[in-house]
Amino acid sequence: MKTSIDCIPCFIRQALDGIRMLTDDQAVHEAVVREVLSRTSTMDFSQPPPKMGQIIHQLIRNASDNQDPYREIKNNCNQLALKLYPELKTCVDRSPDRFETAVRLAIAGNIIDFGTSSQVDDDTIHMSIDCALVQPVDKLAVEKLRNEIERAEKILYLGDNSGEIVFDRVFIEELPREKITFAVRGAPTINDATREDAKKTGLTSLVTVIDNGTDVPGTVLESCSGEFRKVFDSTDLVIAKGQGNYETLNDVEKNIFFLFKVKCPVVAKDSGCAVGDLVIESN
Amino acid sequence: MKTSIDCIPCFIRQALDGIRMLTDDQAVHEAVVREVLSRTSTMDFSQPPPKMGQIIHQLIRNASDNQDPYREIKNNCNQLALKLYPELKTCVDRSPDRFETAVRLAIAGNIIDFGTSSQVDDDTIHMSIDCALVQPVDKLAVEKLRNEIERAEKILYLGDNSGEIVFDRVFIEELPREKITFAVRGAPTINDATREDAKKTGLTSLVTVIDNGTDVPGTVLESCSGEFRKVFDSTDLVIAKGQGNYETLNDVEKNIFFLFKVKCPVVAKDSGCAVGDLVIESN
Repeated sequence: MKTSIDCIPCFIRQALDGIRMLTDDQAVHEAVVREVLSRTSTMDFSQPPPKMGQIIHQLIRNASDNQDPYREIKNNCNQLALKLYPELKTCVDRSPDRFETAVRLAIAGNIIDFGTSSQVDDDTIHMSIDCALVQPVDKLAVEKLRNEIERAEKILYLGDNSGEIVFDRVFIEELPREKITFAVRGAPTINDATREDAKKTGLTSLVTVIDNGTDVPGTVLESCSGEFRKVFDSTDLVIAKGQGNYETLNDVEKNIFFLFKVKCPVVAKDSGCAVGDLVIESN
Repeated sequence: MKTSIDCIPCFIRQALDGIRMLTDDQAVHEAVVREVLSRTSTMDFSQPPPKMGQIIHQLIRNASDNQDPYREIKNNCNQLALKLYPELKTCVDRSPDRFETAVRLAIAGNIIDFGTSSQVDDDTIHMSIDCALVQPVDKLAVEKLRNEIERAEKILYLGDNSGEIVFDRVFIEELPREKITFAVRGAPTINDATREDAKKTGLTSLVTVIDNGTDVPGTVLESCSGEFRKVFDSTDLVIAKGQGNYETLNDVEKNIFFLFKVKCPVVAKDSGCAVGDLVIESN
């Protein structure tokens, strides 16, 4: 997906939110915002938005001299989601269709995104879960995904955010886990899950976990490590969580299912959905 | 008032809204936004926000080859407000305190602002009037303004937007009009009132109307004409309408009363008020 001109105000907000979280020094805020303005003024709009996201969060990390500024937020998100884990499991246990419920919950967890929002609290997550259980989803897409998972020999599951990966775990526990490789980001970027988060939330004891070798908050294949590329290329089916993975992979020719919650008008327009919708979409 | 870093996303939105209104050519949208990003990346934050507003709307006018792009909007706003004129007059006639009601209505009219909003319709204006009649105002400031107007020999009334100036007319009709000079912008900028709007709304037959000689959507004295400066310097009392005039004059040493509706968080913070408040403030 290309960058829209409407992504620009959101880039600036992201930069401001990010740097303000790390320091009260207004000179640093100003320097970061000036640099983001300058970079966006000459940016290549044919690139997906997470490419600029990568630059913005690199600038923030360098300006604040903190290479993992969202670590505390990530830990809190993981703990919050782990507390919800028994509730999520009960929810799946009691549902007439375990698979569909687990997919819905995996998408519900995608609300834990500090790229599109400055704040995600307990209430927001509960609301997201409650809604996801009753919101309309594309039933045909659910069936297609169910069949593809059954048919596939190797499945690559691309994770998105910390906390959210607990919801992914609940989904993965309903799947043939021996087929699954779970991928996290290669380095800290926003609140995206890294290997540390996969460990802390029990993913590493459940499935093979790899990282993509980069700090793009999405999956830009050219930026990923050779090792990741090999797994990507040899897999039959990719399950890609979150907007960032959608924005960076929706033009790639591959058997990919995108699972995400629409959180901005630009992605809504591109995917033909509305903000708030649960998306299960294959390309 | 200095420019806040939080003004930046709003600058970008203003640029996008403005250029989209004038052309569907996405290459032009992109060119304007890139230029605004580049200018803001090196801007002087010690200047008031309307200085950047001036630049943005100059860029829009030049890119669209239209030197008065908001003319139709301005005409519509004037007509809409003129239709409301009898209702506003009745409102003043029936009130126990004509002066206070007229001040409240003048501030209510300040909602007609395409700088802070992309759309202002009939309902928004009616809502603004209804609220302004009952919202709390600083009663001491109203009395102070009443006294200052009585005492002053020369009053300079700085208008703000088209449409809004009909509300100003209702207020001015309650004042000793021989003391009053009404000033409009010297050239088109956003939907700010110019001499043409003053004529169309009956202001020119009511009081002396001058223009400030510039297209800044506010009153930056160094940018104003010598003629305007003379009137400004020789006046006892200035009544300054709108956020733009507040942002550009609130640090000037002069007997100025600002009348405006708070429409953005940055001005809210600077003036110690909340968004939506009616402000009557002397500096």
